[in-house]
Amino acid sequence: MTDVVARLRAAVGDRVDTGAAAREAARADKSGFRADARPLAVVHAASTADVQAVLRIAHETRTPVVARGAGTGLAGGANAGAGEIALSLRGMDRILEVSPDDLVAVVEPGVVNADLNAALAPHGLWWAPDPASRAISTVGGNIATGAGGLLCAKYGVVRDAVLGLDVVLADGRLIRTGHRSVKGVTGLDLTALLIGSEGTLGIVVGATLKLRRLVQGEVCTLTAVFPDVRAAAAASAAVTATGAQPAVMELLDAAAVAAVSAHLGQVVGAPGSAQLTVQTDGPAAAAEAEAIAAVLARGGGDVSLTRDREEGERLLAFRRAMHPAIEARGTALIEDVSVPRSRLPEMFDEIARVERQHGVAIPTVAHAGDGNLHPNFVFDGAEVPQRIWDAADDLFRAALRLGGTLTGEHGVGVLKRRWLADELGDDQWRLQRDIARVFDPHGILNPGKVFAPES
Amino acid sequence: MTDVVARLRAAVGDRVDTGAAAREAARADKSGFRADARPLAVVHAASTADVQAVLRIAHETRTPVVARGAGTGLAGGANAGAGEIALSLRGMDRILEVSPDDLVAVVEPGVVNADLNAALAPHGLWWAPDPASRAISTVGGNIATGAGGLLCAKYGVVRDAVLGLDVVLADGRLIRTGHRSVKGVTGLDLTALLIGSEGTLGIVVGATLKLRRLVQGEVCTLTAVFPDVRAAAAASAAVTATGAQPAVMELLDAAAVAAVSAHLGQVVGAPGSAQLTVQTDGPAAAAEAEAIAAVLARGGGDVSLTRDREEGERLLAFRRAMHPAIEARGTALIEDVSVPRSRLPEMFDEIARVERQHGVAIPTVAHAGDGNLHPNFVFDGAEVPQRIWDAADDLFRAALRLGGTLTGEHGVGVLKRRWLADELGDDQWRLQRDIARVFDPHGILNPGKVFAPES
Repeated sequence: MTDVVARLRAAVGDRVDTGAAAREAARADKSGFRADARPLAVVHAASTADVQAVLRIAHETRTPVVARGAGTGLAGGANAGAGEIALSLRGMDRILEVSPDDLVAVVEPGVVNADLNAALAPHGLWWAPDPASRAISTVGGNIATGAGGLLCAKYGVVRDAVLGLDVVLADGRLIRTGHRSVKGVTGLDLTALLIGSEGTLGIVVGATLKLRRLVQGEVCTLTAVFPDVRAAAAASAAVTATGAQPAVMELLDAAAVAAVSAHLGQVVGAPGSAQLTVQTDGPAAAAEAEAIAAVLARGGGDVSLTRDREEGERLLAFRRAMHPAIEARGTALIEDVSVPRSRLPEMFDEIARVERQHGVAIPTVAHAGDGNLHPNFVFDGAEVPQRIWDAADDLFRAALRLGGTLTGEHGVGVLKRRWLADELGDDQWRLQRDIARVFDPHGILNPGKVFAPES
Repeated sequence: MTDVVARLRAAVGDRVDTGAAAREAARADKSGFRADARPLAVVHAASTADVQAVLRIAHETRTPVVARGAGTGLAGGANAGAGEIALSLRGMDRILEVSPDDLVAVVEPGVVNADLNAALAPHGLWWAPDPASRAISTVGGNIATGAGGLLCAKYGVVRDAVLGLDVVLADGRLIRTGHRSVKGVTGLDLTALLIGSEGTLGIVVGATLKLRRLVQGEVCTLTAVFPDVRAAAAASAAVTATGAQPAVMELLDAAAVAAVSAHLGQVVGAPGSAQLTVQTDGPAAAAEAEAIAAVLARGGGDVSLTRDREEGERLLAFRRAMHPAIEARGTALIEDVSVPRSRLPEMFDEIARVERQHGVAIPTVAHAGDGNLHPNFVFDGAEVPQRIWDAADDLFRAALRLGGTLTGEHGVGVLKRRWLADELGDDQWRLQRDIARVFDPHGILNPGKVFAPES
């Protein structure tokens, strides 16, 4: 082990950090999960050559490597433990190219999503993926998890917004996948396979991103308070049935509204109320917003509508306070199931059933336009108690029964690996694991994540 | 061999076709390439169970299986030869579900793209991929090749329009990949990996498609004739630089204009003229069309603009006559390179250079909005002459030098496999081939396609 660290130092010098603070930080992400112990070292990579040097040493010494961006993951996917090298890409944060003509940017993985978008805005461009963590999460982390966000129903997920990747393989070789053009079908789509692979296939050291032009026109914002979550979910379904395409459509259930109300000291509706927040944009923004307001009112909603951006941000602030409100109550396990959006009302019924049967409150926010829900389990202490896992297990199985999936945008990491085969089936689980072994024959890339050892 | 056919007959009865006509047809696709000899048999699968039965027999007897849809491919990807089973999915053409609420359709692979869209239209829905072959090609074939089309810059490619797949593996097992929701990151994205894999990884027997609502509003069509292809390419670049997002933007170079003019007996511009055809749609269609007309005129174009759909189809007819015009001149090798769209003018320079150096005419049409070009090599007889391959080789390498790719939407098949490693690099080529071996350890899935034997 000291030999590994010595070899790392010989290769990349003082970018090897064996300080207690850095190693301790690398045990954790934002999920609450911590690895069993501190990793051997944190390497702060400054270049592709650094990453290649680290992987060559890891390959020769069979030392596990855990790639990390900003550590904002919610599934324990980037937590480094005993005997492992934490490889931080955070310092590789250059924007190498912005091409308005090709609607392409070439970036290093450590650039923060919001910083990239700030740099793109003067060109009239943006990169659409907008995870709630966008102010603190890196593009590389967004790619590793296949991140989503609030705007996905209209503007797509990470998988729709990456054209090519530079990837260091498990033995230190570098490959370039994909294209700089919208079209390209030369060979297998390794770009897509790498997106969401959570550090198990290779280390992303560069990305060619597909950009969009900034949306012209006004942004309209609506909120509507409903007597209960069923009514709110039905109203969101009614909105999509009209053919309107909101940019944002966020649903807070009664427990979530209660938590945020308490946190902000701002009462919203009668007890039991649920809230829907909708934004429209583009040339038809105002007309769509008016039509949506009518639909929400017909569905029993108490509607506020504004065409003013600042006032719109104030209306969205209630939704944005969800995460701090939950964190103020204790430790949160933030779940991430996704169901076909037509099944949202049933999924809320299932959440209510799980709450009753397990005696836990599960304040939930949903991206109603795309069927992705974040049920929050709140508890005391650092470890997720078994009764919470039991409730989460019940909830996951309900989502799968409704044709849904275990994770819409956070990834599998450590925390959901035990349910992976339930969704994929044993045949597909083994096929996926065998594909990962082609990339990583010695099992040194983020071992124990996504693919738990076979039981 | 007779044993294999006998076993197939025992399993799927008279859906095994050993007639000369069917076997002869299965040697070919629309590329002009023919397999060395007729396959053992054509199996007309009627169900997933049929496909599984065929694959179990193929697996046990190590007999190659070539999946086919309508046989409209342009790269020799579905041509079945000596000792092989041609497995036709064309008869599996049911539309199993259309869900307007979830914007999802579940279909069998043999449904023709245009038939699917005809069935979706009454629901106000469409599946966006629109290869030029859409009237005759199947959804399964579109998926197997990762097809593109005319609308891709605005509405995406097949990869953006498929949520999940039902796939029969090489040994006959069935897996289901992907989701019914926009979001989903549970495990590796095998759906994306299978798209464009040209029958080398598994047999697609079902697909969950991501639909769009039919675009509301008018469709405006423009044509503009330019003195030469450089001017036309510069004008198309000027259009994209304005931020306008045409649905269609097709560029015919001088040789293409000459060929279509001769074919239709309709003179367009002075000799040497090139033509650009543009369509806009959606709520801003008319405003965008007016702005684009001004840009094209400033670029030296002689512009026609109509807001009438029928008149628009008449303007597009010249572009649509390209393929018949080429076919009328002889056998055509239709190439499919793609470059970053900002490099289009340079790519046209390279095509002119290749024409001069190799003494061949290469009439070319480009999807100018996404940088995908179809240079056509016309020759006499059935076999591609070596001098044509030499010119094509020169052209492929020019596209790669410009940051482009060998194939934008037709696939690799047999015809482009010898250039695959040039684009991927040897490391990635081997990695891709090894991934294919995980799916197909005995090499029975479309052997010799995409991954040529190592030289």
